[in-house]
Amino acid sequence: MEVCIVGLGLLGGSLGLAIKKAEADVRVLGVDTNPLHEEKALSMGIADETGAFEDLVPRADIVILATPVDIIALQVTAALDILKEGAVLSDFGSAKRKICATADRHIRRDWFVAAHPIAGTEDSGPQASFAGLLAGKMMIICDREKCQPEALEKIEKLYTLVGMKLVYMSSSSHDSHIAYVSHLSHISSFALGGTVLDKERNEKNIFNMAGSGFSSTVRLAKSSPDMWAPIFGQNKENITEALTNYIDRLENFRNMLEKDDREGIYQFMKEANDIRRVLEGK
Amino acid sequence: MEVCIVGLGLLGGSLGLAIKKAEADVRVLGVDTNPLHEEKALSMGIADETGAFEDLVPRADIVILATPVDIIALQVTAALDILKEGAVLSDFGSAKRKICATADRHIRRDWFVAAHPIAGTEDSGPQASFAGLLAGKMMIICDREKCQPEALEKIEKLYTLVGMKLVYMSSSSHDSHIAYVSHLSHISSFALGGTVLDKERNEKNIFNMAGSGFSSTVRLAKSSPDMWAPIFGQNKENITEALTNYIDRLENFRNMLEKDDREGIYQFMKEANDIRRVLEGK
Repeated sequence: MEVCIVGLGLLGGSLGLAIKKAEADVRVLGVDTNPLHEEKALSMGIADETGAFEDLVPRADIVILATPVDIIALQVTAALDILKEGAVLSDFGSAKRKICATADRHIRRDWFVAAHPIAGTEDSGPQASFAGLLAGKMMIICDREKCQPEALEKIEKLYTLVGMKLVYMSSSSHDSHIAYVSHLSHISSFALGGTVLDKERNEKNIFNMAGSGFSSTVRLAKSSPDMWAPIFGQNKENITEALTNYIDRLENFRNMLEKDDREGIYQFMKEANDIRRVLEGK
Repeated sequence: MEVCIVGLGLLGGSLGLAIKKAEADVRVLGVDTNPLHEEKALSMGIADETGAFEDLVPRADIVILATPVDIIALQVTAALDILKEGAVLSDFGSAKRKICATADRHIRRDWFVAAHPIAGTEDSGPQASFAGLLAGKMMIICDREKCQPEALEKIEKLYTLVGMKLVYMSSSSHDSHIAYVSHLSHISSFALGGTVLDKERNEKNIFNMAGSGFSSTVRLAKSSPDMWAPIFGQNKENITEALTNYIDRLENFRNMLEKDDREGIYQFMKEANDIRRVLEGK
């Protein structure tokens, strides 16, 4: 079997390594517009060979698009156009509605399985990838009723092979939820990093005072703008809603602080503490 | 030598364990208003004996106040009143200006060394403490020019003994900086937890979709309201400034998103990425 991975970054690279580790006789074909990424992918054993989209996509039994979401929205059509008979296309995009809407307009829509792995780190590029990144993580599969059962089965088998747990939902439900549990935390972290860096310009040594709590909260501010700018664009409405709720909550806190509403501030934290139950209970 | 630790929570407990580990013949006296904490401290080896503030503080050569900051602001006077001749008082408060201002009004002010360990986890209570918590971490010492050299030396020796690195600044500079690198990240995290929990009320299974990025960003939302409500109160002005800058930045992001200002959004993230250099370079 041949699996073609388009986009040899953190996720595409980790998928390649995980496939090779689980099933040595699967041949991984790698596509990346950056020749340094292709070189790195070959030397790290992510891919057995690399080449052009037009050459490798038509050869593969399974094609995975692991590029930024604006590129996926273009490649989903381009890939379905040249996909081999009986082959399956899937993707790793963090926003699903636009990609799925694009696929919906293609006559071979039923050979596309939209997916989103809940996995990643704040690092990017093939050099950041590792075989264990996907194992034990959730893979969200969207709009599965639009897929050929055969296509779905093939993709589920691949994702299960690399140790992922499958979850199903609609692409619109995905985008609405993910705005809260992923996109919003990236924005809050980018904004925190920016705010503190701004303060640092005038006040030296501030980072001597930063502990592990700050590092943890600001970690996602290291994430790649190339990956995230298109995600924010594609999930604009849901993110605007989540962000507005978040800003309202912060303004409410500021008002309570100004009014010395100690009890209100206490309740604000007490309610948020419930996140412990939720994170540990899942 | 006898060291009295008042407040046997995460930090006080970890200090006790670290002292006993580094210097077995130091006797640790523990004070806590919660009898269960006292019991736990004895069974964990945090303290050699426990008892009342009025009984143990006058006996000790060094007294450390590791209670919530509103309690410290009261205990600093009470402890200086009954401190043994030649003994030293220090504290672990996360906001320093109010505590230092209180100490400034005491005639034995020069036997007080204001300190803030940049260490902690989102857990609390003696059961969360461990001997290694303080090792390698920063200890910020404030307003050292107000201390007897002998008092300062004694305290520096103790904090160095448990492996801490000493940093010096004024209490007002401390409070202004810490509002950004600690207090603000707690607020952003509490607000994120609250916002997502609020959404969850209507939408089940949202947390299936939460990955390690969300967990990292929301980790501090597990922190203790009993500890944090008084900190926010004591550092109100600085926090209001930091929070206002943070909210402005989030609103700016929301505006750019609404206007599809892709370049602006890209720059917003690119600037925040610089946090990587700062965190890794320190």
